Amino acid sequence: MTAEIDAQAAWLGSHEMDAARQRLPMVYLNIVPVRVSSAGEVTHVGLLLRGTPSGEISRSIITGRVLYGERVRDAMVRHIEKDLGPVAFPRIPVSLQPFDVFEYFPDAAVTGFHDPRQHAVALAYAVVVTGDCQPSQDALELTWLTIKDASSEQIRSEMLGGHDRVMRAALAHMGAQL
Amino acid sequence: MTAEIDAQAAWLGSHEMDAARQRLPMVYLNIVPVRVSSAGEVTHVGLLLRGTPSGEISRSIITGRVLYGERVRDAMVRHIEKDLGPVAFPRIPVSLQPFDVFEYFPDAAVTGFHDPRQHAVALAYAVVVTGDCQPSQDALELTWLTIKDASSEQIRSEMLGGHDRVMRAALAHMGAQL
Amino acid sequence: MTAEIDAQAAWLGSHEMDAARQRLPMVYLNIVPVRVSSAGEVTHVGLLLRGTPSGEISRSIITGRVLYGERVRDAMVRHIEKDLGPVAFPRIPVSLQPFDVFEYFPDAAVTGFHDPRQHAVALAYAVVVTGDCQPSQDALELTWLTIKDASSEQIRSEMLGGHDRVMRAALAHMGAQL
Amino acid sequence: MTAEIDAQAAWLGSHEMDAARQRLPMVYLNIVPVRVSSAGEVTHVGLLLRGTPSGEISRSIITGRVLYGERVRDAMVRHIEKDLGPVAFPRIPVSLQPFDVFEYFPDAAVTGFHDPRQHAVALAYAVVVTGDCQPSQDALELTWLTIKDASSEQIRSEMLGGHDRVMRAALAHMGAQL
Repeated sequence: MTAEIDAQAAWLGSHEMDAARQRLPMVYLNIVPVRVSSAGEVTHVGLLLRGTPSGEISRSIITGRVLYGERVRDAMVRHIEKDLGPVAFPRIPVSLQPFDVFEYFPDAAVTGFHDPRQHAVALAYAVVVTGDCQPSQDALELTWLTIKDASSEQIRSEMLGGHDRVMRAALAHMGAQL
Repeated sequence: MTAEIDAQAAWLGSHEMDAARQRLPMVYLNIVPVRVSSAGEVTHVGLLLRGTPSGEISRSIITGRVLYGERVRDAMVRHIEKDLGPVAFPRIPVSLQPFDVFEYFPDAAVTGFHDPRQHAVALAYAVVVTGDCQPSQDALELTWLTIKDASSEQIRSEMLGGHDRVMRAALAHMGAQL
Repeated sequence: MTAEIDAQAAWLGSHEMDAARQRLPMVYLNIVPVRVSSAGEVTHVGLLLRGTPSGEISRSIITGRVLYGERVRDAMVRHIEKDLGPVAFPRIPVSLQPFDVFEYFPDAAVTGFHDPRQHAVALAYAVVVTGDCQPSQDALELTWLTIKDASSEQIRSEMLGGHDRVMRAALAHMGAQL
Repeated sequence: MTAEIDAQAAWLGSHEMDAARQRLPMVYLNIVPVRVSSAGEVTHVGLLLRGTPSGEISRSIITGRVLYGERVRDAMVRHIEKDLGPVAFPRIPVSLQPFDVFEYFPDAAVTGFHDPRQHAVALAYAVVVTGDCQPSQDALELTWLTIKDASSEQIRSEMLGGHDRVMRAALAHMGAQL
């Protein structure tokens, strides 16, 4: 299954992918990784420290697209492994009902959620992660922040494209006191 | 806005669209039109009677894709107008949180939701419709069924690709006694 | 039905009600009245201006308990009529799934939602109101605020017991840019 | 905290409790325990085999009320421990948003959900359980059923008061093929 998906992803070359991105909305995931107490209460939120193409540093949640032929559940597992490593032990939600749907447009004015590369429709989930997280790929660092720190103006100013709104919507959905 | 979308839809010709459908999952909507009492209780569900490409007759809910640059809300309005006419007066939901997400694959074995043309990820909504409905396009007829009739084996056997499961999930979500 | 409920409400006298309030959690509703565009996008939120028992002025959403024998849907209609008058024409949600559940305790430290009289478990809904609103009962005024005004520090400081959090959670749920 | 709750529960004696049950709706929980795959897909549902007061045998989900002063999360933990034992290791949901709200009345005709003792408003959750389950209290046995078995007519006929509808609504919410 994974091999098949990799083959397909490779087959849709970067040039073709760029073309498709300008013609069709992408199916995306917005995943907010969290730590919880034994009663399920959110205690910490995990943010990735990334370098942006323009050389800035930003904090972000986990995002990525659903591939052709891939189930949403499998895409969740794949993106969490990609960003948090193979022993993060995520608890994938039992229902696909997202807590919200966020729409990213190349034009930041439409919804406030901005993605210069594409139009993406993102299913948003808060996902409990219980294992050790080893940020990989292009992420420099993973930081577990308390609710208070995560919702501070400082952290919010380091998040781009509307990720701060997604994070705060997730925290509100989990009953955190913002 | 609409003119712009039409232009884009035209630009992505049917040949290119076929190619894209074999490489990327489509962002789809599954809309279950309903009539309600003044207390918001579902009383009837609207099903379209359509001819299938193979010449059969089937009953279906409202479905369709979200176009590039189009908001989910605007796609909802467009698809409802397309299938129910301009004076259906739908009450578009205040939140984009769908009651569920359904995944359609060309291979019916993956999830049981089947679309031979494409991989579609469908946001599912129940939408109250208050006006007169004049089925247009390729729909032959719109029938408002009671909950009892809609959940009968007869009607279910006339629904293809998993539409009966979507309809019943919507009815369950609205508290109907199935 | 209504007469029967009134009889029961009367039968549970205020002394007994006070006693019950100290022993059992109350089933409550938190209703955020909103105005929307034809595409279902929230444009305004309605806040009641009330006098508090201590003589202060505060802004609040619609709240109230579910009576014995009363369905949640009927309680929604009753409380909206009570606070907004008989021609508010609310669109009662098709599903009872609330966007969140808020827990009010006499001890404000438990959840941050505070009700000195009782422990209340509140099902929260955003409800579209389309008619004329005539605040009745103990509300002095109803104000329709834009999203920007409603989320201002000024308005938030005039809301007590956590109502500002409920309002903002509702707005976030509806995709408003806070 | 627990000691305090026990004291309060004791203080509200069974006579008083009976009286309260005839005057106020109770805040209830409906918990459907499930086993899942590593991708979060439901594989089994846990049903309790109980004796009813009238001497019949029935299968049921986990139910129970929220006590005065108790948070919903803590009530979830308490009822799961009560019915499944201390090492069931439930994953309490991160959000209190239930997948649905079910209303039980002494009159079975109102909603089809029937509780002869009381009017209960039940928040419904599917809860993943990962540990060993040792049914305690008045439950004779806990059975983990496949989706297919759980949705069979045989099992459904052994469930009372609407529990089969709650179970199937939970399964539908989790994307199970019923």
